[in-house]
Amino acid sequence: MSKLVPPHGGKGLVCMLLEGDALAKEKEKAKGLKQVKISPRVKGDLIMIGTGGFSPLNGFMTKADWKGVLDKFLLSDGTFWPVPVTLDCTAAEEAAIKIGDEIALFDGKEIMATMKVTEKYAMTEADKIYECEKTFMGEGTPTAEDFWKIAKADHPGVQMVMAQGPFNLAGPVKVLSEAEYPTKYAGVYLRPAESRKVFDERGWGEVAALQLRNPMHRSHEYLCKIAVEVCDGVFIHSLVGNLKPGDIPAEVRVKCIDALVQNYFVPKHVVQGGYPLDMRYAGPREALLHATFRQNYGCSRMIIGRDHAGVGDFYGMFEAQDIFNKIPCPTGEGKALLCTPLKIDWTFYCFKCDGMASLRTCPHKKEDRVLLSGTMLRKLLSEGGTLPDHFGRDEVVEILRKYYEGVTDKVEVKLHGAATGK
Amino acid sequence: MSKLVPPHGGKGLVCMLLEGDALAKEKEKAKGLKQVKISPRVKGDLIMIGTGGFSPLNGFMTKADWKGVLDKFLLSDGTFWPVPVTLDCTAAEEAAIKIGDEIALFDGKEIMATMKVTEKYAMTEADKIYECEKTFMGEGTPTAEDFWKIAKADHPGVQMVMAQGPFNLAGPVKVLSEAEYPTKYAGVYLRPAESRKVFDERGWGEVAALQLRNPMHRSHEYLCKIAVEVCDGVFIHSLVGNLKPGDIPAEVRVKCIDALVQNYFVPKHVVQGGYPLDMRYAGPREALLHATFRQNYGCSRMIIGRDHAGVGDFYGMFEAQDIFNKIPCPTGEGKALLCTPLKIDWTFYCFKCDGMASLRTCPHKKEDRVLLSGTMLRKLLSEGGTLPDHFGRDEVVEILRKYYEGVTDKVEVKLHGAATGK
Repeated sequence: MSKLVPPHGGKGLVCMLLEGDALAKEKEKAKGLKQVKISPRVKGDLIMIGTGGFSPLNGFMTKADWKGVLDKFLLSDGTFWPVPVTLDCTAAEEAAIKIGDEIALFDGKEIMATMKVTEKYAMTEADKIYECEKTFMGEGTPTAEDFWKIAKADHPGVQMVMAQGPFNLAGPVKVLSEAEYPTKYAGVYLRPAESRKVFDERGWGEVAALQLRNPMHRSHEYLCKIAVEVCDGVFIHSLVGNLKPGDIPAEVRVKCIDALVQNYFVPKHVVQGGYPLDMRYAGPREALLHATFRQNYGCSRMIIGRDHAGVGDFYGMFEAQDIFNKIPCPTGEGKALLCTPLKIDWTFYCFKCDGMASLRTCPHKKEDRVLLSGTMLRKLLSEGGTLPDHFGRDEVVEILRKYYEGVTDKVEVKLHGAATGK
Repeated sequence: MSKLVPPHGGKGLVCMLLEGDALAKEKEKAKGLKQVKISPRVKGDLIMIGTGGFSPLNGFMTKADWKGVLDKFLLSDGTFWPVPVTLDCTAAEEAAIKIGDEIALFDGKEIMATMKVTEKYAMTEADKIYECEKTFMGEGTPTAEDFWKIAKADHPGVQMVMAQGPFNLAGPVKVLSEAEYPTKYAGVYLRPAESRKVFDERGWGEVAALQLRNPMHRSHEYLCKIAVEVCDGVFIHSLVGNLKPGDIPAEVRVKCIDALVQNYFVPKHVVQGGYPLDMRYAGPREALLHATFRQNYGCSRMIIGRDHAGVGDFYGMFEAQDIFNKIPCPTGEGKALLCTPLKIDWTFYCFKCDGMASLRTCPHKKEDRVLLSGTMLRKLLSEGGTLPDHFGRDEVVEILRKYYEGVTDKVEVKLHGAATGK
């Protein structure tokens, strides 16, 4: 009997990924279907729908779901959901497709899925603007005027939405591929059923998830260790989806986590995994998404630190923690989010504390603390500078240094937003 | 609206302490009543009943309560309770008292309370042995034979029970005094209503309690700081009741806590308090008692480390954590214990971790860790030796050193059991 939190939505893991004969048959059929070209973000969402990571979603959202999620954090059936998961297409694609058609979703390399189209709806500029304001506006840009002054240039999530085609297609999908993830990240890429199996085998009940999209330093290690002290174990869950230029590639980040886990963790209390999504940089809303899909992976707690899933100054430092107190808690089996936040303040090494601490536990001054922005860190590493003591673990810094020695000429060091996130 | 956990028992805080006119009247009446001489343990229990710390108890237990608590962890009305809270007396006292009598409970200095006697029952040697085996036998002495080989000589809790008179008296009490506590520990001694008020004023909901009966070193600080990271605040709650020779007096311990809180804590996340009980050294059962009365003080979490409330080798290292999984959870309003354990493994400073850690978070070797038994610590301090780096905070060690410089000649350094506890 599993002690883990059940998947979100009350329907178990809803996995739309085909296998075996069904997969072979559907692949064959897909060749003859009209194709819609999908974006990298849609590709990641699709794989999550395939593996059950986005349970209870079985496909892309209808207009009513889209509206309900934006206005009330609820799907049209009353289940909690925090961000739109939609499939966009061009006007030409839309014109060629009738309701009831089966279509093939093509990522440029392979047919990722088929979909039975149940609804088509326009996404006007006004709709997209509405989606952006609902999804991405936070305390950093409290008015639409503030927001739009910088959002198009500086917010990658906004850019993704505004670049979408003028129509969305809705319907249930049959997923045919997990793309490169199972092979490229063998042993790290885990489906929700697999992480649940690992947790069950260890007898875990309360599992905390750490969301990671940057190399893991002592601040992240500290978050994990607090979780290990108070939960059965921690799931270090890295984004291995597509990245922006200048970000540290997932392979390097995974190697850093490995080094850290091997040298500084008690193995039986930690599991490492990767998931195929692109960042939306939706801050508070994305923190909720992170908790929602972590529930599907078997986690009952989601570690939320400062500026979770943030970019630039769009969100308040702890807005992603506060939103958990504001979301609706629908009644009915599986309707509410069951993965609760493990909220942790800004963390750092403090010389006077003689160890890691946070703003909740350290009463000392700024100069007693080792603080380093992500931007500064990359600058030091890429220029061969020395990192301050206690900031990172030697084994991790060494991996990063080698990576930067190899790539300094090739990648831009100034990053697109990733400097402030986790 | 308070966000705190309600008091245990579903009846609010049951406070049997009289005040104002009622107190003056009862004091006058008490002078004319037959007296029963009470033990220090009973005195502490009485003050807890007075302040609501032992809610829902309104007096000393009947035989049925005593038996229910020992056999099933339940009072006769089905409410959870972990240890006997009984009033013993001599054969002569018993003979002079009739059911229905009001009596005065005298501690040797003052009349602490009056009690309406509703039941008298014999405590034979067999009964006391039964109470001891149920209350104090743990994994360290799994058979009665093992237990009794050492219990009478080495277990202060057993000694207390076996030294009791041959009868118990039951009935509701009216408490007339809190003895020296409110003046001697002004600002530290808090009633449950007072700690709740402080917590409410800070807007706290989830409060963790740290039980403390030894000077506070970095291990205890670390337990508190984990609690501060994951709860609204921590209540550092020291035993200021009577001590055995060789223990550090409460005043000194309180001073150490002050120094620690002032220099190493963020004040708004910590409250210090003292409570008037004697240790029973009942290990697992006492951990449950600690959680039960902390619920009354407003705490929803009770920090349980290694060998909580232990003495010698009577209990397994984590038996006091495990018992929380084994106790009954009665249904009905207020019947079940609502203060849940915050279980934390053995903690220490580790050089390789470069900070505090526990056996759950540190994968390194014994020689990488700063470990020091309580006995060794006292030896070093009393002999003017140097403590290993990172074990304690300088400000605290300084206070202890001064205390030992003054008292080394006066107190025995080898302690009665306190070496292993918290």
